[in-house]
Amino acid sequence: MPDTELLALQTDHIQTLQQRYQKALLAHGYDGLLISSGAAPMRYGDDQSYPFQGYGPFLHWTGLAGQEHSWLLIRPGRTPVLWLYQPVDFWHANLDLPEEPWQQAVEVRFIQHREAPSMERAGKLAVIGDPATVAQVPGDHNPGRLLVDLEETRVHKTPYEIACLVRANEIAVCGHRAARDTFLGGGSEFEISLAYQRATGQREAEAPYQSIIGVNEHAGTLHYQFYDIDGPARARSLLIDAGVRFRGYCSDITRTTPGAGEGRFAALVQGLEQLQRRLCGMVAPGVDYVAIHRKTHDGIAALLSAAGVVSGLDDEALVEQGVTRAFFPHGIGHYLGVQVHDVAGKREPSPADAPFLRLTRTLEPGMVVTIEPGLYFIPSLLAPILDGPLGGHFNHAVIDDLRGCGGIRIEDNVVVTDDGARNLTREAGG
Amino acid sequence: MPDTELLALQTDHIQTLQQRYQKALLAHGYDGLLISSGAAPMRYGDDQSYPFQGYGPFLHWTGLAGQEHSWLLIRPGRTPVLWLYQPVDFWHANLDLPEEPWQQAVEVRFIQHREAPSMERAGKLAVIGDPATVAQVPGDHNPGRLLVDLEETRVHKTPYEIACLVRANEIAVCGHRAARDTFLGGGSEFEISLAYQRATGQREAEAPYQSIIGVNEHAGTLHYQFYDIDGPARARSLLIDAGVRFRGYCSDITRTTPGAGEGRFAALVQGLEQLQRRLCGMVAPGVDYVAIHRKTHDGIAALLSAAGVVSGLDDEALVEQGVTRAFFPHGIGHYLGVQVHDVAGKREPSPADAPFLRLTRTLEPGMVVTIEPGLYFIPSLLAPILDGPLGGHFNHAVIDDLRGCGGIRIEDNVVVTDDGARNLTREAGG
Repeated sequence: MPDTELLALQTDHIQTLQQRYQKALLAHGYDGLLISSGAAPMRYGDDQSYPFQGYGPFLHWTGLAGQEHSWLLIRPGRTPVLWLYQPVDFWHANLDLPEEPWQQAVEVRFIQHREAPSMERAGKLAVIGDPATVAQVPGDHNPGRLLVDLEETRVHKTPYEIACLVRANEIAVCGHRAARDTFLGGGSEFEISLAYQRATGQREAEAPYQSIIGVNEHAGTLHYQFYDIDGPARARSLLIDAGVRFRGYCSDITRTTPGAGEGRFAALVQGLEQLQRRLCGMVAPGVDYVAIHRKTHDGIAALLSAAGVVSGLDDEALVEQGVTRAFFPHGIGHYLGVQVHDVAGKREPSPADAPFLRLTRTLEPGMVVTIEPGLYFIPSLLAPILDGPLGGHFNHAVIDDLRGCGGIRIEDNVVVTDDGARNLTREAGG
Repeated sequence: MPDTELLALQTDHIQTLQQRYQKALLAHGYDGLLISSGAAPMRYGDDQSYPFQGYGPFLHWTGLAGQEHSWLLIRPGRTPVLWLYQPVDFWHANLDLPEEPWQQAVEVRFIQHREAPSMERAGKLAVIGDPATVAQVPGDHNPGRLLVDLEETRVHKTPYEIACLVRANEIAVCGHRAARDTFLGGGSEFEISLAYQRATGQREAEAPYQSIIGVNEHAGTLHYQFYDIDGPARARSLLIDAGVRFRGYCSDITRTTPGAGEGRFAALVQGLEQLQRRLCGMVAPGVDYVAIHRKTHDGIAALLSAAGVVSGLDDEALVEQGVTRAFFPHGIGHYLGVQVHDVAGKREPSPADAPFLRLTRTLEPGMVVTIEPGLYFIPSLLAPILDGPLGGHFNHAVIDDLRGCGGIRIEDNVVVTDDGARNLTREAGG
C-alpha cells in the first residue's frame, strides 16, 4: 500500500475514533477526556529510566510510541487537541514528527513543560493514564466504566489499523527469515536476536514485547527470556516468537525450525503447522474463539497419537483427562493492536478448561487475533502424567528425546473479515 | 585475573560489607535489615513489564542483576540469608546461578513465592527497596538516615569491586573498537549499536544505561537516545558513550572518532584527548573533584582559542563569562559502581558554577570516578553567545562547520589509589 493511501486511511481512522469516543463520553456524562501519554518511570533508587513505549489509548489516536509527557484532549463535536512535549533540551533529542495529513484532523501544539495543559473551561472532565502522570490533574481519574467502553473502541480495527498490522507483519516476517537462517547457520540465541533486529530495523527496546528466542530445550519455556551467547553444540530446534511495531501497531509471530537431521521433531512441526492452518481456517464472524481453543486440544491429541508419543488412549480421553493440557498449557491466542495482548478480550472469567485464555469472545468482523497452537515437552508438566496411572501409554524414550527440542509454537496474525478471515502473516510470506 | 582469585575476593567483599552494614545498623538501633531485590514494574494499562536490572544495595551484596522478587537479610554478627525466587514455572526460565564460593558466606534459600519471608523473630527491622515490593512487609521502610549511611558503604570500593570494574572496562573496550570500525566502514547508528552488542555479548536490555550513539550532529545531543537506521551520506563524527555490566558492576566509557578528511574536527578531538589525560592525571587522594571540573573549563577555553573558534578573549574571561559552559555544559563525571551514576556523590548542593555536577567530594582511595570532559556545538546554547556582546570574537564559519560534527566527549573510568590513580579504561586498551 502506498504511503498516501495509508495516510488517507489514518485521517478516516481519527474520524472513526472521534465518533466512538464521543458516544462513550456522552454515555457517561463527560464533556471532555484528557489522555496522558505517560512517561518512563525511573528505576528505584537510581537516576536511570525504563525504556518507554506509551499508553494504549494515546497510541490508538496518535501511534506515537515513545512520546512522553504529552496530552490529548477529546471533546464531543470538537477537533482533538494534542499537546506534544518537545522541549528545547540539549540532553535529549525530540521524537521526529514528519508532517502528515492526520495533523489536519488534530490540532497539534508543542509544549516545553511536562505538566498537563490547563483544562479550566473543559466542563466535566475524565482523565486517563498512568496515575503517576495524572495525579495532579483536576478531573475524574481513570473512571472504570468509561475505561471499559473506551477499551471496546479498540476491538474492531479500522482499515488504517489493519493496514498498519499488515506492514508490521511484513517487517517481522523479514526478521523471522533472518532468524531462521542464522539458526541453521549455527548461530546462538544472541546472534539470532541481533539478526532479527538487523533485518527488522528495530531495536530491542522498541519491540512490542521481548522476543522469545529459544534454541533446543529452551524452546520449552513459554516466555524464555535469556539468550545464550554461545551457539549450541548440536542445533536441534529454534522457537522464535517476535514482532515489531509499525506506527504503534504490533505484530506477534512465532515460528519453529527443526535442525538438520531432526526427522521426528520435523514431522511434529509439520503436523502442528497443518493443525495451525486448520485453526486459522476456523476464524470467521460468529465463531466462538473458545471453540478454536478447544479444537486445538483435539488436534494436539491426534498429533500425539500419530507421532507415537502416546498409544492405546483415544483422542477424546487425552483431552478429557488433561493430557493435552500438559503438552499445550497456554491459550490459543489473543487480540492484537497497539498492545501485543490487546485489551477487552475477556469480559468474563476464562472457562475452567482454559485458564490462560486471553480472549473468550465471539468473533466479529474487524477483530484481529493471533492463532498460536503449541506443543511442548516441559518436564514439570509431563512428570505427573508420565509417573501417573496413564504413564504406561506413553513412549518415554520418544519423549525423552523430544525434550531436547523443547517445543513447538506456530503463530499467525489473523483479521476477521465480513465473510471469513485474512491471515496477515501468511500473506506477508511468513 | 583468574576466576578463582576474583571469587576469593568476592568472599572478602561480603565480609567487608558485613562489617560496614553492621556498623550502620547498630548506629541506627536496628537488629536486622531486609533488602528487596525489587521487581520489574508493569507498563501501565498493559500486561508487559519493563526490563528489570535490580536495586543497588541488593546488587552490592549479590551482583545478581535481573533477579526479581528476592530478599536479603543482614543482621549484626549473623550470616546473611538470601531468599532467591526460583519458581517452578513453565512460562519463564530462572536466572542461572552457578555454584560459587560466595554461597558459603551467605545462606542461600530458594523460594517459590514472591512475598517477603517471615521476619517474626528479627527484632527491630529496617526494610529497604522499591515501595511497590516492600509495602506489605512489617518494619521501618526506607529510613532516610540509615539509607544515607548504607549509601556511604558503596563509596570506597573493595578489591573485588575494582576487579569487576576492570573486567567491565575490558569488555566495553572491545565494543568501542567494534563501534569505531563500523562507523569508519560507513555503518549507521543502528548498525554501530548492533556491532557494540555483538562485541560485548551484551543485550541492549542488559546494558547499565542506554548506549548513546550519535553520528554527525547527533553527537551534540548529550544523551542522544535514537538511532538512525540508515548510514549518513558523509560520516563526519561518531560519539559513543556505552558500557557493560560485569557481575553487576558497570563500565561507562565514551569515545569520539572523526570521519575521514575531518582535519579540523580531528585536531579538536586530539586536543580534548590531551586535556582528558591531564585531568585523569589529577585524580589522587585529597584532590577536590570540583577542582578537576573547574580545571576542565580552563582547558576548554585554551582549546577554543587554539582551534581559532574564539579570538581576542583570554582564557580566564572565557570561563568567567560562561562561554566555556556553553561548549561544556555538563559535569566532569560521577561515581561508578553497581549503578552507572553511583550513589553518595553529593552530600551538599552543587556549586553555582557546576549545576549538573554529580560528584562534589574530596577524592579518597577506593573511590571510582569517571573523567569525561566534552566540547559540543549545541545551537540552543551557542546562540545567546554568538548573538550577544561577545559574538564578534567568534569565528562563525568555523562553528557552523563544526556543528555538523556535533561534539566530542572522552570518558574513562578511574580508581583513586593510595598514591594516585589507576585508569581502568586505558589499562584495558581503550
